[in-house]
Amino acid sequence: MQSSHVNSGKDDTGELAIIRHIRGQAARTASTAIRLGIGDDCALLRPGAGEEIAVTTDLTIAGTHFRLDWHTPESAGHRALARGLSDLAAMGATPLAAFLSLGLPRALAHPKGRWEKSWTARFLDGLLKLARAHKTPLAGGDLSETPIPLADIVLVGSVPPGRALLRSTARAGDLLYVTGVLGGGAASLPYLDRLAKASKGGQMGLNPRRIPKNLEPLLARHFWPQPRLAQGRRLRSQGMASAAIDLSDGLSTDLTHLCEESGVAAEIDPMLLPVHPGANLDYALHGGDDYELLFTARPSARIPKSIAGVAITRIGRILPARRNRAAVTMLTQNGPQPLEPRGWEHFSDRMPG
Amino acid sequence: MQSSHVNSGKDDTGELAIIRHIRGQAARTASTAIRLGIGDDCALLRPGAGEEIAVTTDLTIAGTHFRLDWHTPESAGHRALARGLSDLAAMGATPLAAFLSLGLPRALAHPKGRWEKSWTARFLDGLLKLARAHKTPLAGGDLSETPIPLADIVLVGSVPPGRALLRSTARAGDLLYVTGVLGGGAASLPYLDRLAKASKGGQMGLNPRRIPKNLEPLLARHFWPQPRLAQGRRLRSQGMASAAIDLSDGLSTDLTHLCEESGVAAEIDPMLLPVHPGANLDYALHGGDDYELLFTARPSARIPKSIAGVAITRIGRILPARRNRAAVTMLTQNGPQPLEPRGWEHFSDRMPG
Repeated sequence: MQSSHVNSGKDDTGELAIIRHIRGQAARTASTAIRLGIGDDCALLRPGAGEEIAVTTDLTIAGTHFRLDWHTPESAGHRALARGLSDLAAMGATPLAAFLSLGLPRALAHPKGRWEKSWTARFLDGLLKLARAHKTPLAGGDLSETPIPLADIVLVGSVPPGRALLRSTARAGDLLYVTGVLGGGAASLPYLDRLAKASKGGQMGLNPRRIPKNLEPLLARHFWPQPRLAQGRRLRSQGMASAAIDLSDGLSTDLTHLCEESGVAAEIDPMLLPVHPGANLDYALHGGDDYELLFTARPSARIPKSIAGVAITRIGRILPARRNRAAVTMLTQNGPQPLEPRGWEHFSDRMPG
Repeated sequence: MQSSHVNSGKDDTGELAIIRHIRGQAARTASTAIRLGIGDDCALLRPGAGEEIAVTTDLTIAGTHFRLDWHTPESAGHRALARGLSDLAAMGATPLAAFLSLGLPRALAHPKGRWEKSWTARFLDGLLKLARAHKTPLAGGDLSETPIPLADIVLVGSVPPGRALLRSTARAGDLLYVTGVLGGGAASLPYLDRLAKASKGGQMGLNPRRIPKNLEPLLARHFWPQPRLAQGRRLRSQGMASAAIDLSDGLSTDLTHLCEESGVAAEIDPMLLPVHPGANLDYALHGGDDYELLFTARPSARIPKSIAGVAITRIGRILPARRNRAAVTMLTQNGPQPLEPRGWEHFSDRMPG
């Protein structure tokens, strides 16, 4: 169902009231691509003539992808949408619309006091602020009662036919690049843990005033990741990239995916890695949550030093796949060594704490 | 992210292994509208030239939308997809692709024994069987660890531009119709409760052999609701319906939505209601889960007695909205009486048990 049951709630606490609030907040993200938004069984989108449609869904679960005592509701909302927008960025797609399926415990859904101060309203504020920055209207969704807060964010984008950046099109000989700097998202985790323990956090995340000034730039990388939509579009429209993936699970894991889908191997030079100040090589190699783009380009491609204000750094190269060589290797003083995928995987015993 | 991390899992228990299984099962639902399915940051769809895109998302939560001790995994999967397909049916849209964001507790995600017998595999079997029946490929999704099983199903459909059936276009003077019979879905609930208590159910739902023969037709309405896609498409393509909505929350609630979105009122004649054998008027008026279509038509429209094997029944008419009249009234021996929306609403104290 669409989040559609609006105007009929007479009380101010039930599903209808919550959806009326959401519809009010989302109205400020309207767009011409939306023929019909929240309020019917489905939303209707009108893509450009002949465009292909890119679709991605991303679950965000309290306790797994964010923590009520670490993340402000605004940061949780921002991060939920950033995950989906980052997937569109990796294809070089342009966002058409977002959909939000929201699960809420009754305590968060029935705020005491004003709606604007509720966890749900503040979650939406964070989500919609990022949506507006990327001209992405919230066009629908669903609402349900759940034991813990969770959000499934759906992004629909468009891309010229046959031109999307894929994971499966890297070739031996290509060079390997990343946008921005790596490791900041994951390097924040131990600090967040310590700060939350010290402040006996509640359900509204860490109080920004309790965050030391010197940690702010690092934690901002974690709280407010920036999906690289402008960079992805430029890489696609100017034909610069031969393949791309976003770095959500960690470089070692995401590069392994790209190699497997392309049927190639890759070699990283750790001396070239752009490591975020405050992070280290391990976080840059295996930490998730960076939401930068990893891409390959033919050796003849002209790759600028930055795109739309974000640095582009060469970090290695693509090699032919060989039976007796790991998919990803790293240069060391003792020659190339295998680099195991040690990023995020659900249901594995490697799950970060 | 897409459910995309495939072929790299070396063990047989983690996320990669589960997604490899899902990808294998989903491969049997391929379609020409899918340019790129599971295996990249986004799926890519190629809609027909000039078509509008219909999108709907539906959360299915264990304990709210189904129960582990009532529903077999196949039924839970069928019902999750049926909810989304029913929303497409209400718009007269044709399915292009489905996406599934699946949250699983570790115990269900790490099946002991063979994958084919696991809760997750059987859930997908039920979902994919219905998907194949309606030519709907599973093109992507996400996977996460959650305390209870949950699924967000996303349906993408297509519809000729400007031709979708809407909730907001009923007019005073229109006649009111439903497909099929009503109340069977909700009338099953007390029987399910009793049977589950008697059989000390586990996590795989009621054993079909423990269901008395005489209850089978009624419970089948609950376990295997049939989305009315063929009926919705016919109503749209032949210009028969002036407005439509699907009956997921219950007739009284969904008709109230339609009236509010159209700015009209409606009157039901309870003598005309097609009540499922074993149900009663209350279930037909307020019980959810029927997934039939409620639609309006101009008095001059020729409405057949059945469409694609499903009966069509006139149940009332549309009236002008009046300040001092309830949105929905019901004819009684004492004249028209207000019919309050008493169907499903999350976070309300009217929530069914």
